[in-house]
Amino acid sequence: MSVRYPLADLNTLPQDLKDKILEVQEKAGFVPNVFLALARRPAEWRAFFAYHDALMDPESVGRTSHLTKGDREMIVTTTSAANQCLYCVVAHGALLRIYEKKPLVADQVAVNYRKADITPRQRAMLDFAMKICERAAETDDTDFEALHAHGFDDEDIWDIAAITAFFGLSNRIASFSNMPPNPEFFLMGRVPREKKS
Amino acid sequence: MSVRYPLADLNTLPQDLKDKILEVQEKAGFVPNVFLALARRPAEWRAFFAYHDALMDPESVGRTSHLTKGDREMIVTTTSAANQCLYCVVAHGALLRIYEKKPLVADQVAVNYRKADITPRQRAMLDFAMKICERAAETDDTDFEALHAHGFDDEDIWDIAAITAFFGLSNRIASFSNMPPNPEFFLMGRVPREKKS
Amino acid sequence: MSVRYPLADLNTLPQDLKDKILEVQEKAGFVPNVFLALARRPAEWRAFFAYHDALMDPESVGRTSHLTKGDREMIVTTTSAANQCLYCVVAHGALLRIYEKKPLVADQVAVNYRKADITPRQRAMLDFAMKICERAAETDDTDFEALHAHGFDDEDIWDIAAITAFFGLSNRIASFSNMPPNPEFFLMGRVPREKKS
Amino acid sequence: MSVRYPLADLNTLPQDLKDKILEVQEKAGFVPNVFLALARRPAEWRAFFAYHDALMDPESVGRTSHLTKGDREMIVTTTSAANQCLYCVVAHGALLRIYEKKPLVADQVAVNYRKADITPRQRAMLDFAMKICERAAETDDTDFEALHAHGFDDEDIWDIAAITAFFGLSNRIASFSNMPPNPEFFLMGRVPREKKS
Amino acid sequence: MSVRYPLADLNTLPQDLKDKILEVQEKAGFVPNVFLALARRPAEWRAFFAYHDALMDPESVGRTSHLTKGDREMIVTTTSAANQCLYCVVAHGALLRIYEKKPLVADQVAVNYRKADITPRQRAMLDFAMKICERAAETDDTDFEALHAHGFDDEDIWDIAAITAFFGLSNRIASFSNMPPNPEFFLMGRVPREKKS
Amino acid sequence: MSVRYPLADLNTLPQDLKDKILEVQEKAGFVPNVFLALARRPAEWRAFFAYHDALMDPESVGRTSHLTKGDREMIVTTTSAANQCLYCVVAHGALLRIYEKKPLVADQVAVNYRKADITPRQRAMLDFAMKICERAAETDDTDFEALHAHGFDDEDIWDIAAITAFFGLSNRIASFSNMPPNPEFFLMGRVPREKKS
Repeated sequence: MSVRYPLADLNTLPQDLKDKILEVQEKAGFVPNVFLALARRPAEWRAFFAYHDALMDPESVGRTSHLTKGDREMIVTTTSAANQCLYCVVAHGALLRIYEKKPLVADQVAVNYRKADITPRQRAMLDFAMKICERAAETDDTDFEALHAHGFDDEDIWDIAAITAFFGLSNRIASFSNMPPNPEFFLMGRVPREKKS
Repeated sequence: MSVRYPLADLNTLPQDLKDKILEVQEKAGFVPNVFLALARRPAEWRAFFAYHDALMDPESVGRTSHLTKGDREMIVTTTSAANQCLYCVVAHGALLRIYEKKPLVADQVAVNYRKADITPRQRAMLDFAMKICERAAETDDTDFEALHAHGFDDEDIWDIAAITAFFGLSNRIASFSNMPPNPEFFLMGRVPREKKS
Repeated sequence: MSVRYPLADLNTLPQDLKDKILEVQEKAGFVPNVFLALARRPAEWRAFFAYHDALMDPESVGRTSHLTKGDREMIVTTTSAANQCLYCVVAHGALLRIYEKKPLVADQVAVNYRKADITPRQRAMLDFAMKICERAAETDDTDFEALHAHGFDDEDIWDIAAITAFFGLSNRIASFSNMPPNPEFFLMGRVPREKKS
Repeated sequence: MSVRYPLADLNTLPQDLKDKILEVQEKAGFVPNVFLALARRPAEWRAFFAYHDALMDPESVGRTSHLTKGDREMIVTTTSAANQCLYCVVAHGALLRIYEKKPLVADQVAVNYRKADITPRQRAMLDFAMKICERAAETDDTDFEALHAHGFDDEDIWDIAAITAFFGLSNRIASFSNMPPNPEFFLMGRVPREKKS
Repeated sequence: MSVRYPLADLNTLPQDLKDKILEVQEKAGFVPNVFLALARRPAEWRAFFAYHDALMDPESVGRTSHLTKGDREMIVTTTSAANQCLYCVVAHGALLRIYEKKPLVADQVAVNYRKADITPRQRAMLDFAMKICERAAETDDTDFEALHAHGFDDEDIWDIAAITAFFGLSNRIASFSNMPPNPEFFLMGRVPREKKS
Repeated sequence: MSVRYPLADLNTLPQDLKDKILEVQEKAGFVPNVFLALARRPAEWRAFFAYHDALMDPESVGRTSHLTKGDREMIVTTTSAANQCLYCVVAHGALLRIYEKKPLVADQVAVNYRKADITPRQRAMLDFAMKICERAAETDDTDFEALHAHGFDDEDIWDIAAITAFFGLSNRIASFSNMPPNPEFFLMGRVPREKKS
């Protein structure tokens, strides 16, 4: 497909975008393409990352959640695979491997989460996420009961649903705009990091 | 379904939420439920409405678009109907009737946009929105060409896709959380307003 | 779409069709398009309305049913929405609002009957109607048991299935022939009627 | 599945039903079950067979059609197979074999009409019938053009659509009520009839 | 469709293929087309029939199974109908009629196995076969439990799954290569064989 | 899911299976689980691998093909992902990376082959493979023409279809029997091999 929406040039961006992007680069060692792909429209960029952080890093907005970082990335990887979103499966699969410290889990949930080596609690979480992803209009009280049985409360359930919904947005934008995942993501978390000496 | 996420009490909300909500109430004559339903989580509320405004009111963020207000609400109503989202079909159907000044159009596109009384340009716009809604992973250059033929440029196409993607998020949250549309929406734009004298 | 099957001219119709149509016009204040759209073929017209009346007005053929007028129109509106039939959703949605005396219920069931403000008995009725609409070949004894639990007997179940099946026919004809709903239907039952003095 | 709607006893039926059924028995050598399965409700029975005859035997209501008897039964067999209706595939498959004088054609179109030994004109007819069967809401002018190219006019197209729609009704009723095809149908038209001497 | 892969000429085939084919012809009275359609590629031919025999005639490889010959052909006919494979439905439907000594059963399971005149054990067997056919990735322990309840052990379950999987392969090859069933199959098992005197 | 079909113990296997498995182990450095998972049934094992080799290593049976080793593994990885088969996506994705010498390509085609970095010829090949995988019954001459335009001849097309069909069988067996991919596969072909000195 043609490149229609080229990555933004960092130097031309508003200062707040630039600052955040440099901060990410410092931490990750590279700039994930989503930061430059969305920057053409700064207002949407700000809203996107504010929403992202509110859901994926709840402590950053003064909220706690019973979902772990690994749980959240597992939701993203699984539902993004259902939506066939190359960028999100590759980028969030990398984070999932790292947070869960399980180098095989991302490929497992991306291909078939039902056969993945995860806990029954995570399986229930993903069953619900997939229902939100594919047929949210059919949700009812029985979905909540199934999750309560695994210790999730209604705020956790909101988290699962909102993360799925937010990345459903992200998946659609990445797909139509042909956003490529950075090559760095493909290998992250697959091999043990060497200890810094 | 049980009420699990009750509407927030306006008086307990942070000032910026309160201000925006009172402003909306002033303008609309009532507070659309989405404003109170999401307010339990202020950080998500802020991101949601910032994103909403950046897409649905581009002038508010210093951007222009070839999509009219009516075009935008037509995208929302059509794709929300495909997602079977009661809140969004009813609320945005009301806005669609008002902006397009066509009291029948919202019901038409919600039931079957292919049989609606709209322009060929709007039909092409909705065909693309539906593809983003249901199978964004299959988009390719031919989708862009079909829209260029009707005068849409690549930024307009981003608008169509992003609006669809954003309301896909909104649809999923409204459905699982059982957000009811305000009764006021059902009748708005169906009968001629009396002129103020 | 082109107009391929124009509405019949009342004056050229056989007397029995004419009589029935004038009777409807007298009662409703206008002639619903379906009466003129099908009249090009009088034999099919007669069979269609005979079938319609046998199912929707059982007393007219000497039969009683536990389904109310509102129940029946709710089945029609819900399954016609699943079939994306503009004519039937709009026309029968109007009747549903009137019979149930609930101005919001037609839009609710048309968008997502699972989230509509209806009784558990009506919900069970619609679940079965939707199964007949979409996958009748999968029906079995468990479907009957679910309905018996809500007080429906086997004759009521025949009613639900036959109404769904009949309007499945109607939906297909209205869609392919591009039958437009009369503008009058869109507003019927939404605003309280003024009492005749 | 339980027998919930037993076949009617011929002797208890209204005279007009009885007469028609005896006439059919005289001609076919047996009473096809549909005649007794629907007779419990005489008003619906009359409408059903009036509709059936108006579409499947147009000469009986003073109308001619470019569809042959074989064409009509081919539409019924193909779309009833898509609806997985045992009664209609078996009963109308038998008629199809007889009218087309092709003992293999019914099994061919029931399994996969795309691989059947039929004419390109019949293939186009079945493509349209299947669209009416499965997604009538998506029909548009291009469907008509495809059929015009094979010599069908708009009245023929109405026939194809209406036959498909009517048997969609019939399929749903036969399936939910578990109507069994008479054993006689399975073999009809498969072996050459012996000439009467 | 064009003939792209003509049936092989028996005389040009390797001796082992020729021998097996002549043996089949001797037994059946004709050569089923699949033997000549695949023979263009002897290595694939040998693997295909070795696999076929290992599953469909386990005694030939020194294995026993709780599935009867009729059970196996019923699985093939049902799942091949779901895959719309003309060759396999017709050819294996013939064998099913013969092994089960039930002239109606093949048409029943091909059209709608849920309404067929089969045992509850066979129904459970077909439910599982259909799940393997259409969504094998969703299988889990509950599928095994449902089959154990009918007396199937895990080796029988392997048989059901492997037969379904093997004919899924066969269905795809027969469909894309347009393999026609021999006319002889259509009538086999429908009429009582005359006893040899 | 429970382990129902444990991997076979190499020492208990027939000599020909043992020999082949030791040969594979020698070459790969480990025994891929499929060899031990299927060995419980030696006749099926032999047929499976004979079929596999005839399609995936045509030179081994004296045949040449215009498909490269990479092409073949790309078909397997893409269609196995559509079938959500964990074993095949992981194992054949590894081979695909190695043969194509492209460490990213397997993840790309597994998530969304339409967005993968492949040639237009490979894209056409995968479009056809996906049609065979999901709706082989709909194939017709236009599918062949699309492939001829990219230089594939009818024998190549047979290869694409047969590989897809064979791995459809493999996918179903691996899924229902819960066959786990060896951990070694996940990393193969992702990092440059060190040269042997």
